[in-house]
Amino acid sequence: MWPDLSCDVKLSSKWWGWGDASKSYDLETRPRFFRFLQEKLEITGEIIQQPVSLDSVKVSGTRVEEAFARRLMNIFGEENVQLDDKERFLHSLGKGYLDLIRGWKGAPSGVPDVVVYPTSESQIERLFSESAQWSFVVVPYGGATSVVGGVESHTKDAKPVVCLDFKLMNKILEVDGRSVLAKVQPGCLGPELEKALNATGLTLGHFPQSFEYSSVGGWVATRSAGYESTRYGKIEEMVENLRLVTPMGIIETPLVPASATGPDLLQILVGSEGTIGAITSVTLKLRKAPQSRSYVGVLFKTFTDGIEAVREMMQKEIIPNVIRLSDPNETKASLALASHNHGSLIERIGTWYLTRRGYFGSEGVVLILAFEGSPEWVDFERKRALATCRSFGGFSAGSGPGRIWYKERFDLPYLRDKLMGMGVLADTLETATTWSRLPGLHSKIMEAFTSAFQELHVSGYAMAHISHEYRTGASLYFTFMAKQLADREEEEWRLIKNRVTDVIVKAGASLSHHHGIGVEHAKWMGEYYGPLGIRVLKAVKHELDPMAIMNPDKLLPAS
Amino acid sequence: MWPDLSCDVKLSSKWWGWGDASKSYDLETRPRFFRFLQEKLEITGEIIQQPVSLDSVKVSGTRVEEAFARRLMNIFGEENVQLDDKERFLHSLGKGYLDLIRGWKGAPSGVPDVVVYPTSESQIERLFSESAQWSFVVVPYGGATSVVGGVESHTKDAKPVVCLDFKLMNKILEVDGRSVLAKVQPGCLGPELEKALNATGLTLGHFPQSFEYSSVGGWVATRSAGYESTRYGKIEEMVENLRLVTPMGIIETPLVPASATGPDLLQILVGSEGTIGAITSVTLKLRKAPQSRSYVGVLFKTFTDGIEAVREMMQKEIIPNVIRLSDPNETKASLALASHNHGSLIERIGTWYLTRRGYFGSEGVVLILAFEGSPEWVDFERKRALATCRSFGGFSAGSGPGRIWYKERFDLPYLRDKLMGMGVLADTLETATTWSRLPGLHSKIMEAFTSAFQELHVSGYAMAHISHEYRTGASLYFTFMAKQLADREEEEWRLIKNRVTDVIVKAGASLSHHHGIGVEHAKWMGEYYGPLGIRVLKAVKHELDPMAIMNPDKLLPAS
Repeated sequence: MWPDLSCDVKLSSKWWGWGDASKSYDLETRPRFFRFLQEKLEITGEIIQQPVSLDSVKVSGTRVEEAFARRLMNIFGEENVQLDDKERFLHSLGKGYLDLIRGWKGAPSGVPDVVVYPTSESQIERLFSESAQWSFVVVPYGGATSVVGGVESHTKDAKPVVCLDFKLMNKILEVDGRSVLAKVQPGCLGPELEKALNATGLTLGHFPQSFEYSSVGGWVATRSAGYESTRYGKIEEMVENLRLVTPMGIIETPLVPASATGPDLLQILVGSEGTIGAITSVTLKLRKAPQSRSYVGVLFKTFTDGIEAVREMMQKEIIPNVIRLSDPNETKASLALASHNHGSLIERIGTWYLTRRGYFGSEGVVLILAFEGSPEWVDFERKRALATCRSFGGFSAGSGPGRIWYKERFDLPYLRDKLMGMGVLADTLETATTWSRLPGLHSKIMEAFTSAFQELHVSGYAMAHISHEYRTGASLYFTFMAKQLADREEEEWRLIKNRVTDVIVKAGASLSHHHGIGVEHAKWMGEYYGPLGIRVLKAVKHELDPMAIMNPDKLLPAS
Repeated sequence: MWPDLSCDVKLSSKWWGWGDASKSYDLETRPRFFRFLQEKLEITGEIIQQPVSLDSVKVSGTRVEEAFARRLMNIFGEENVQLDDKERFLHSLGKGYLDLIRGWKGAPSGVPDVVVYPTSESQIERLFSESAQWSFVVVPYGGATSVVGGVESHTKDAKPVVCLDFKLMNKILEVDGRSVLAKVQPGCLGPELEKALNATGLTLGHFPQSFEYSSVGGWVATRSAGYESTRYGKIEEMVENLRLVTPMGIIETPLVPASATGPDLLQILVGSEGTIGAITSVTLKLRKAPQSRSYVGVLFKTFTDGIEAVREMMQKEIIPNVIRLSDPNETKASLALASHNHGSLIERIGTWYLTRRGYFGSEGVVLILAFEGSPEWVDFERKRALATCRSFGGFSAGSGPGRIWYKERFDLPYLRDKLMGMGVLADTLETATTWSRLPGLHSKIMEAFTSAFQELHVSGYAMAHISHEYRTGASLYFTFMAKQLADREEEEWRLIKNRVTDVIVKAGASLSHHHGIGVEHAKWMGEYYGPLGIRVLKAVKHELDPMAIMNPDKLLPAS
């Protein structure tokens, strides 16, 4: 039985998992996939655990002194300062595996001492000016969908943590239709933004997996990528101008399309993960909303064939909006998952035929392509893409697989919640590298998963897809699942995460392509950027946040 | 009569002007353009001055002590250390107007004390390690085509200036064809690079005006843009990885196509203009060499029509390689200039016809489009672009204007040398802004030129084109000419430059879109980036170059 979700949760509809509390992943109607998981993970499929009730969670009392609380109420308004235990606990949880574990078990960690809801930039300036009198640290809080420990707040000393929740600063301040620019407050969530832009015929075109719950400020602070980044770029390429309040004052970059004026200040501030200031406005580069959309699935006999086709497409500058190539393991899972969807071309022409031609062998893979734009462009680019696929033995499976992917593209995080109930660890991690290094890196990471599962003596399953492609390389996105080690959940997860991330960093691949650093990746930053690189980042932080008020323990390795 | 150019100049074929000494701009065969200039600038057209002979230039003696010179010879090899006056003088000259004045007059300024030619990164490391014992500053030197004072070297104190000429570090170290990447040394010049890449079917696609003489290191250090940047991006988008030797050691960014790992270290180092270290290798993102190329000229009745057509193209994501829209003044000059080219469609159908239809009125403008890629893409994109132009009254003038532009695209700097002989100040400056602000900015800048000419009581002519387009805006590139004020050349130039740049910065436009900062733009940097922005850039510099050895007086405003 699922836990009662009707608890009075103002801020997160489902604090112990993903998204909409009324929604859960329907595994029952996917019997083949259910069996697939039972077999691979050696689980019964029974629900063996459920999250504790929110009321039962014991949270340490706030360290905020009454006089400081009064100052905060003076600045933000009484109604916008929350010292309540439940609210504070909820503001400590992101959406990483460890967050979920803490949620399910009701084991608080990194809980802020007070939550404030600014309504203006000047309130945040006033907060910083209090640092002359009061000792505290500040953790900016957006949609709280970080999967790398970007939400939790730690302080080594006894300084109280002020969580700055941007939920009330969620306005679109200005749309410049002639320049396709929108100036937006950081708390604006994906659906709010797209709805307003679409009404004027525009789109940002940024659709991360977390789209429904993540915020503009969070995207920009973490260098997020959406599933259409292959065509539209990552969020850092969608920012024309940025404004932050730092403990040293306001910093704003020029509102210009490009410049040759020294190191790029904008790209210093983008990705700073709240460690040097709080973003108060972002001017986003928009585009015309597409008139036409097309999906197509393509089957390849091997992962290598698929990689070569995708590489060739990118290097011929054939750029679909989405290029998502599953590896053999992910293909097997997808086919099991998709088997309840009837009527696709694959079903109709018969799996037996394709199997005979070698497309459903153990090495077979599925590629999903999506095209968005004017009808003539969609037609032109799809033809070119499919011709390239065919030259590597690609077999077009029609629009079915792509449409299924599109329909369910935001649903997979719900599956994780269901699996958690069955005692399954499920998480994702990602990287990016050049085409030359990509196949070798994929193999090494898969081996690292396998040996981590063996080391832990658990049944596990890892799978990957290539997405977010570039002319020079692509990102590799891994999903991994394993039977949970009861009461050793964190240790189990850390061992897998460490083994794999070590492989990534040693291979010189991206420590993260779009999840960011947060608390969880910080310890690898030194190896990733080298000692001088870290000194540069620390110098920037020190200049804007000399008293180390902002987001302690995130992004930079402990010195 | 032109000066004798046979002087023994090893390093710059034409130290007092542009490029190839055997080449000069053929104004005689362009009688209409010659008359146009005579009329606008009120000049006779007679050659009234010529550059001094190199031998007559008096250069202050080197401040390098003999023992330090011996150390340098020990590090770089005797043959790669030059203390000769002539060499040192030549290494003080870029290609800005003030450089040319210094050259013509033989008036040295910012002359380095010694020129060294490193052949390896470790030699530069050894040079920096000498700073414990010897006091000196270092000025990196590439193709020396800076037009913003990027070459000259100043020191406030008596520290000798070591010019680090990268001419011997010009190898292509590695080409990764699978990932379309090339690792290149900084001294590699444009033509050398393209020739080698083209041989393997690849191209960088970076063609700045200075292409024939500028270097990879210079491009990356200054955020250069080529004429195809609309499609291929500026140089900062073509760099996958960068390695520098700084006074604090080597810093190298990860070789990854994209990442979400905090502030972008790569974009901190790109554009640093030699102020924090010397670039020793760049991994460049390549593309397949295009199979097909097409040019087309389009006439519009007004600049506004042209701007709207270009904006619409960009926002419909129709992206030609080149979009170059002349304003009415530049159109008049171009038509005068082009009138010796026979056989173009314009000539054939008769100017009278188009004039009657309003295309050659005083407001008429010319747009040049270029498309490069696969034949089917060129065809597809050209059709879409022309349809957009037509919807704004654009009249296709065939391939003639575009072909002429392409043929002569590297020739215009030669014209400046010729004009100098006639007593004409000729220079360019550029900026970028959003589409909303662009027409207003263009007007304000044109007014600033006019009032500067009036203030100086000189006849002048200013004209502009829009190029380097983005969805959200574009760059504005101005050429200005005025009758020289004899013996007040620098004062005259500075007044014009100051008046116009003040307008640019006050309007919130780019202080530079692709020329960079150097010495000449540094004083505006504070206003452009704001006090906190400058503090961040200074903190980065201080961290990597705490003793302020690198490129003094460039990029950052004096503190």
